[in-house]
Parts: sequence; structure tokens; C-alpha cells
Amino acid sequence: MNTGKLSKLAAQLSILLIDCPDQKGLVHKITGAILDSNLNIVSNGEFVDQESNRFFMRTELDGSVDGPELMEKLRSFLPVNTNIRLSKREKKSVIIMASGEPFCLGDLLLRQANQELPLTIPVVISNHPNLAQLAAKFSVPFECISHEGKSREEHESAILERIDHFQPDYIVLAKYMRILTPGFVSGFPNRILNIHHSFLPAFAGAKPYHQAFQRGVKIIGATAHFVNQDLDEGPIISQDILHVDHTHSALDMAQAGRDVEKIVLARALNLVLEERVFVCGNKTVIFS
Amino acid sequence: MNTGKLSKLAAQLSILLIDCPDQKGLVHKITGAILDSNLNIVSNGEFVDQESNRFFMRTELDGSVDGPELMEKLRSFLPVNTNIRLSKREKKSVIIMASGEPFCLGDLLLRQANQELPLTIPVVISNHPNLAQLAAKFSVPFECISHEGKSREEHESAILERIDHFQPDYIVLAKYMRILTPGFVSGFPNRILNIHHSFLPAFAGAKPYHQAFQRGVKIIGATAHFVNQDLDEGPIISQDILHVDHTHSALDMAQAGRDVEKIVLARALNLVLEERVFVCGNKTVIFS
Amino acid sequence: MNTGKLSKLAAQLSILLIDCPDQKGLVHKITGAILDSNLNIVSNGEFVDQESNRFFMRTELDGSVDGPELMEKLRSFLPVNTNIRLSKREKKSVIIMASGEPFCLGDLLLRQANQELPLTIPVVISNHPNLAQLAAKFSVPFECISHEGKSREEHESAILERIDHFQPDYIVLAKYMRILTPGFVSGFPNRILNIHHSFLPAFAGAKPYHQAFQRGVKIIGATAHFVNQDLDEGPIISQDILHVDHTHSALDMAQAGRDVEKIVLARALNLVLEERVFVCGNKTVIFS
Amino acid sequence: MNTGKLSKLAAQLSILLIDCPDQKGLVHKITGAILDSNLNIVSNGEFVDQESNRFFMRTELDGSVDGPELMEKLRSFLPVNTNIRLSKREKKSVIIMASGEPFCLGDLLLRQANQELPLTIPVVISNHPNLAQLAAKFSVPFECISHEGKSREEHESAILERIDHFQPDYIVLAKYMRILTPGFVSGFPNRILNIHHSFLPAFAGAKPYHQAFQRGVKIIGATAHFVNQDLDEGPIISQDILHVDHTHSALDMAQAGRDVEKIVLARALNLVLEERVFVCGNKTVIFS
Repeated sequence: MNTGKLSKLAAQLSILLIDCPDQKGLVHKITGAILDSNLNIVSNGEFVDQESNRFFMRTELDGSVDGPELMEKLRSFLPVNTNIRLSKREKKSVIIMASGEPFCLGDLLLRQANQELPLTIPVVISNHPNLAQLAAKFSVPFECISHEGKSREEHESAILERIDHFQPDYIVLAKYMRILTPGFVSGFPNRILNIHHSFLPAFAGAKPYHQAFQRGVKIIGATAHFVNQDLDEGPIISQDILHVDHTHSALDMAQAGRDVEKIVLARALNLVLEERVFVCGNKTVIFS
Repeated sequence: MNTGKLSKLAAQLSILLIDCPDQKGLVHKITGAILDSNLNIVSNGEFVDQESNRFFMRTELDGSVDGPELMEKLRSFLPVNTNIRLSKREKKSVIIMASGEPFCLGDLLLRQANQELPLTIPVVISNHPNLAQLAAKFSVPFECISHEGKSREEHESAILERIDHFQPDYIVLAKYMRILTPGFVSGFPNRILNIHHSFLPAFAGAKPYHQAFQRGVKIIGATAHFVNQDLDEGPIISQDILHVDHTHSALDMAQAGRDVEKIVLARALNLVLEERVFVCGNKTVIFS
Repeated sequence: MNTGKLSKLAAQLSILLIDCPDQKGLVHKITGAILDSNLNIVSNGEFVDQESNRFFMRTELDGSVDGPELMEKLRSFLPVNTNIRLSKREKKSVIIMASGEPFCLGDLLLRQANQELPLTIPVVISNHPNLAQLAAKFSVPFECISHEGKSREEHESAILERIDHFQPDYIVLAKYMRILTPGFVSGFPNRILNIHHSFLPAFAGAKPYHQAFQRGVKIIGATAHFVNQDLDEGPIISQDILHVDHTHSALDMAQAGRDVEKIVLARALNLVLEERVFVCGNKTVIFS
Repeated sequence: MNTGKLSKLAAQLSILLIDCPDQKGLVHKITGAILDSNLNIVSNGEFVDQESNRFFMRTELDGSVDGPELMEKLRSFLPVNTNIRLSKREKKSVIIMASGEPFCLGDLLLRQANQELPLTIPVVISNHPNLAQLAAKFSVPFECISHEGKSREEHESAILERIDHFQPDYIVLAKYMRILTPGFVSGFPNRILNIHHSFLPAFAGAKPYHQAFQRGVKIIGATAHFVNQDLDEGPIISQDILHVDHTHSALDMAQAGRDVEKIVLARALNLVLEERVFVCGNKTVIFS
């Protein structure tokens, strides 16, 4: 495993995220505005993407932040086409969607219960009833919205209605096995996370472990990514792998892969919840 | 991660485990006795430890096994000082002992609920009350046996009484933070598993993450091992690590290390439950 | 990294490789024939591929082997369609083909010089002149057979002539950047190894690091495989990966990937040279 | 493997390294001085060590740097007890010391020849004659300074004389198997790198693979560190591991471990040569 800082933020921090066209002197000017607001910089990360010539900066601030004032100062010199976000350190609301497999959902519920992730889960939405009991163990509401007898649009509509009700910050597809339509996805840009059970772009689509078994690979893996219009093509947040050999059947691979899947998903979600992830085109810039 | 076959056994298998002084022709003779009993060998693993000159063999058998008959055939030619075990494929009974940290216990409870491990958990025993709720979520009995106001002997005595009551196959120390006495341990040779939060033998003893932080290591890890008379010195079953850097505080390391700890423990326990682990002196021989 | 036993064979061993349709009692009969020949089994590995119902067995034998006699005994009871190979433990002859990149070739030359791999390299063949100096450092003959001004057939013909001259056991493509024709490949079934600079099947074909960069993956890797008729589709022997992040340009990935490439290739080659690799359809069965 | 950026620097860069007591506004002031000198910041990394309250900053600068002028500007506001280093991007001079094992030395020589590391190697110094041929392949001077018949002081004296002659930037102990005296080490603070064949602090001292074998560990590893007064106790730069099992003898571990050793050493050396490593007490702060 590569990294695993799962909750590095102290209690009273704010996080400033800036994403704009690169130009000379940005760090100096931005840190000047921060100083001028009498805030302390706890940590700072900067990156310039050469292809898009865009500048990314994530700053953890200590002190009592007057958001509008700081924003105004920053806006006064930052170029147009700048995104600024100032985020309090607080729990985010995350709806989990799942189908039948319990291991990712269970792991997230457990982390919520153990306070290992800064989130609340207002509801678990599933197209099958069989994870109800698991959610109930953790006293998390569970809503089964079956796809049977519904068109795809009707099904997604019914789900959207519930999502609208809860107004979550993020949606996590924790082994949700139905493909979302572009219409659905476009409502939540860079706010839907998915876990795919292969090291993408290998074995995109259905049954990746069977594909992996047929190909005779010596590693299997998992990929957590933002969902966009193209299936399994969204910006990758985290990936990890596991070594296998000829003694692994496709089922063995699927069973062994569970641990990688659940940990890669939790790691990606934590990075997102801690506001460490920028999206840059079809890639992510991550200040871990 | 290195390997992860978490449950490879089909339903109707028996497992034959033989451990004896090495001599010429053992594989031929043993497979002969198996054939003679009209059993099919599904898979076979053999190893000779050069230092002790001991032979280890694990065989998965398909067919209706007449245990006493097969044992008699094997005993007729195997040397004295041979251990033979014939194990049905069935769930083992495992008592979990924990203290205050929930993540290993939670992971094991979840795996039991999801049937990811072939075990039943008759009871969780803790010296603190605060994991009661977690066990209750999974409807697993929880018994708090506080150490306060008791001598070490009285405390262990109280625990032993409950263990005797349940007659478990194995005991798992899932972040149980008290040292067991040699007297306690000697009652369960190679039947108590512990998870230690470092890559042993580095950082044995207390506060391994603080030790790791002080030393400035670039990897942290976890070790699952059988417990013997010497603290953190028992036969190692599984180990894995995680890369860290200078930005990790001791607390960050502890938080990041949780995922390695819980997965290394689950992996080791699964190997043990699937009868894949022999103990050879202070080492393990594992047919994975 | 997963495994790394690079040369486990003692000096006077023979290796018996059997590959046949599975049937009951094979291990018993084969070990019987070995015993009958008064040979000692040092280690033994068996596997049955469920899909093809084929049995694979690799046995290290100690003692003075009368090859024809043992073969005759084995043939007497083994089914038709059985492959048997009895191999002395000795250095294999390996021709290395390379183009312009020195790091894989250099690593192999160094391992030969340090006796880290059981091989001799009778010649390095390249379509470019610029690795001549590197081969010369190790006093290994270097032959430049330029593809310029030649048709593909003429070029391969010229190479084949030199290969015929040396009669190597194996051919290693150590960053040889031209695609071999099916005609060429068919002359050396399961005897040509290639290193591909991605975790196949992801990023097959040209410029995998550029593809990886464009896709924004968080891991890159390398795959060593036997070459067959289909580019990058042959049986995989070894794979490993490396974590990367948004700060890696395509060039950074290529530079970082070198170490994985050279080690995955050396590991795969060592497995092959130690006769640990069977090919089963489009997969490998490896007794490591 | 964790990371592997082996040479990310473009040709005309300068690197500014600052290490001082932390105080508010440092980033703003330092970037101000850089802007004022009309330099462009290519990349920037900052870190505050909480324990020592020290600030570390590494900046890659593009443009024509007037060193003394920039230094003067920086000194005008930076606290006393500040270390500033401004380094041109150029090859460093590195003396390699080795004993009998060729694999680390060979790998470094190869990387120098392939221009994979930004260094020149003016001389290889050994206490044994047998690596002379390897150095000669790469036309690198080799000096054998035998320890036989000399006191430790006499031996080190003879070595120091040669080091003084070459005035290297760094000294790399590439399997140099003699312990250096505190007197020797104190002459090159944070300028001697060593590779130790275990994941320190486990198995410090002699014969780590034998220790690992005796302990029955499931991972082995390597550690590259700066050498200080205490054997195997210096600041760690890089570590990695390899999974092993019961089939590995101590010799197998040693052979398998070579690849980890050589890569961990090369990775650490590259980080040092690219000026990415600060020493902070007994730890390193690395801007990778």
C-alpha cells in the first residue's frame, strides 16, 4: 500500500482551495492576502499542471477566518476563470448507493461508527433489499428503490428524488452495479465516487475478475474514481493492487480483491472529504 | 499486498495435515494410502524444513473419508513423532479478545456477518466496556471482564473460566492491550493469534507507532503471529507494510496503520482457519 | 514487490517437468517411479488446471539420474498427450535482442557477470549500433543488424540466420522496439520473453507511459511475458507496479518505470531459466 | 515500490533550500525575495516540523540567478540559525566505497553510464581487490586499500587521504562491510550514505538475512540512510521490502534482497543528488 493518512486535520482548521491559470507571483500574492487576514498557514501545497498551465493550491489555515473578506482580497488579484473554495473542517454528508455486495458498504459504515472518516451517512440507497439488515446494524436509514418494472429513467428519477431530499455533499457507489445515465451523472460533477474492481484502464466494464482470470494476469487491483459521462473513464483518485498466481480462480480473485477494493475506496473518499483532491481535465491533482 | 486467498475451500473437502521426521518415499507412501482409501487429492503441498529435517504435507481430499481407517493406514508406516490431523471443512469457533480500539474487532465481526471468514464468534471478551455496542450491532455476546481491582492472576482466571465455557478452537487478540501470562498462554499452544502494530521484530513492546515516528522510518507495518511465552516473539503468520513520510505524525501513522493491521490479522486468521499453517519451531510453514 | 527467489537450485540437481491430462493417482505413480530409480525428491510442486483438466508437476531430484530409464518408466503409465522434460541444472544460452535503451540490457549483462542468473549470453543483437559499447564493457559479442533499407522479412531473416548460428535456449527482448512477425515467433514457441512497460492488458501497444500519463493513472507497471502471435497478448510470467501521482510527467513515469521493468524482466527470466514455468493455454503455471 | 522519480530536473534550474526556525509569513517573504530577483518558481515544497518548530522549504527556480544578491535579500529577514543553500543543477561527485559484493556497485556504475543519476564517480575505493574488474568495465578508477596489517586508524587514514584528494560531494557505502569510526564519520556530516540489508531498526548489525531467517519473518527489506556516529542509527532516506515465505533459506533471502537493496540505494542517492533531502535531527524531510 502506498499511503494512508486517513484523517490528518486538526479540529479548528479551514481549507482554502484555489485553482486558476498560472502566472508569476501567485504564491506570494495569495500568502500575502492570508497574512493580511491575520491567519496562520499550517500547511501548503502547490502544483502547476504543464499541459493546461493551471495552478492549484491547497492551504490549511489556522485562525478565525472571515470568509467573505478573504475571498474579496483574493478575487482582487486572481485572474478570471479562478475557482476558490473555502471549506470549514466539518463532516460531509455522503449518500451511499449499493447493490448486493456488503463488503464496501460494511467497511464504510464501520468507519463512520468508529469515526475513522469525517462523514455522516443520511441514507443508503439500493436497488436490492438484501443490504437492509447491514445498514440497520448501524442505524443508518436504508431505502430500497428496485429497478424492476421501471425504465432506467423512472428508476433514476426515483433515486434522484431521494437524493434531492437529502442534499448530500457526495454520492459513493459502493458496489452499485447499475450504470448511471449521463443525465444523472451530469447533476453531480466530481461529486460521485465509484469503486471499480480492476486496475483501470485494464478490465473496464463487466466482470473484471473473470477477465483477469482469463487473461492470466499476475496482479489484480481496484480503482476509485469520480464518475463522469463515460463508464469507467472518470478521473482516477486512488488505485492499488494485489499479487495473484495460477492457483487463483476467478472467484478466488474476487474474494481476495475485496480487501483492496474496500481500502482503495475508503482512502479515496477520505482524500475527497479532507478536500485534498482537485480535478484537472480528466485527471486528479491530490495534495496528500 | 502480497496474497489474499481468503476462502478457497469448496464445501465437501477434508484436509489432511501431516508433520513428521523426513524420510525417503513419504509422498509416495502417503498418496498410496489415500488412493487405497479411494479418495481424490484436490491439491497437495509438501515442504521439508532443512534445519529440523521435518516433513510437512497438507492435502485437500475429496470423497467420503473414513477418518479412523485412513489414520490407521498412515500410522502403519509413518515414523514415531508424527503429527497427523484430519480436519473436516467446517466453521471454527473463535473467541475474540479486545480492549478499546474498535477497528480490528469491527472488521472481524463484519467478515463473520458477510461470511468472508469460516468462523463463528461465540463471545467477545474485553477488559473495557466500550466495545459492547459494536458487538451488539452484530448480535455477538460481549462480556466485559475488567482488570481493575483484580490481580493479574484473578483477571486471567476470570477470563479462563469463560473460555473454558465456550471451548473455542482459537482465540484472537484483536487489539487486546494487556500482556498474557505464560501460564495463560501455555494452555493454548499455537491457538492464540495476536496482531502487533509494527513489522516485527522492529518496535516490539509498547507504542510501536511512537517508536516508529521517533526513529523516522519510511515504512510502518503490522504483524500477525501466534502468541507464545515471549511477548511479540511467537511464530509469525503474516506481515505487511505501508509507506509513510515525514509528514506523518505518530497519530497519522497509527491511523494509517489501522488498515494494514486489520487486513493482516484477517489474512492470518483465514490461513489458520483453512488449516494452511503449520508451526515449525518458532516459525510457520504456510501452504497458501 | 512480491517474490524474489532468484537462484534456489543447488548444484547437482535435475528437474523433472511433467504436464499431462489429469487422472487419479498421478502423484503416487510418478513418485513411485522416482523412488524406483533410487532418486531423492528435494522438492515437489503440483497443480491441476480446472479449465483444461491438465496436471502439472515440477520435481527437483537429487541423485544420479539415468534419464532414458526414468523416462521409460514414466511413459509406461502416463497418458498419451503427456509432455515430460528432464533438465540438468546448467546454464542456459540466452540471446538478448535490444534497440536503443540500455537499462534492461545493462541489468542482464551485470547479472550475468555477477552470476546472479544461470545463463550465458552468446550475443546481443540490435537494430541500432548504440548499445555496442555497453555489450563491449562485458565482453559480450554485439551484432547490429539494421532494419533500414530492408523489408521486415529481410530483416528478420538476417536475424534468424544469426540465431540459428547460436542455437540459444531462449531469446529475450530487452526493450527491442520492433514487432516480430508471426512467422518469426512461431519458430520459438514459449522461448521468447518480452518486457512490456505497462501492467498489461492496460496500455498495450505503443507509448504506454504516454497513455498512462494521459489517463491519469496512479500506478504504472511492467509485464514480462512470452511472445506469441498476438502483440502483447502472450502468457504473462511476472508483473509489478509502482505508485505515481500528478507530479509525474510521462517522462518521469518512463524514468521511474525503468527499475520495475528491469526487475520484472530479470525475475521472469530467472523463473524460466530455473524451469519453474509451464505454459497452459494462454497462461503460465509457475512453481516459485 | 513507493515512488521512483529518478531525475525530474530540467537542465537550467537552480534549487534553493532553506531551513530555519518557523515563524509567520516565511513563505510570503521568501517568495517575495524570489520575485524581486525576477526569478520564476517552478515548484515549491514547504514543511514545518512540529517537534523542532523548524521550517523547511525547497524551491526550484527558473531564470538567471544572482546567488549572492538573492542570499543577501533572504538573509535580511530570515532568522539567525537559518541554513540557506543555493545549488546549481549539475552533476555531483560521489566516491563509492565497496567491499566484495558487486550488485550495488554494478548498478550505480550502470546508472552513471546510462546517465540515470546526476553524478560522476571519480574513484571506487575498496578494502578488497575483487571488484577492480567491475569498475574497470566502466573505466572508473579503482583503488584497493586493504585493511589487512593495518590498525583501524591507519586504514581509515589511508582512505581519508584519497577522499581528500578527490573532494567528493558525497560518499556512498555500497556494501562496504567495515564499520567506520566516529572520527571518520564526523568529517562528512550527512554526506555519507549507506545501504543496510534490512528494514531498520529490525536486524541492525551483522548478518541481517540470517537474523531474518532465524526469526521467521514474512518480509525482508533494505534501508538507505545517512551514516552518523551510531551504527545503523542514522537518518533514514528510503526503505522498501519484499515478501518471503518459509521456502526461503537465509541465502535465498540474501539473493532476493539484492534487488531491493540496489534500488533503495539508487533511489535514496537520487533524492540526495537532486537536493530533495533535508536532515532534521535524526530524521529526514524529503520533498519528492
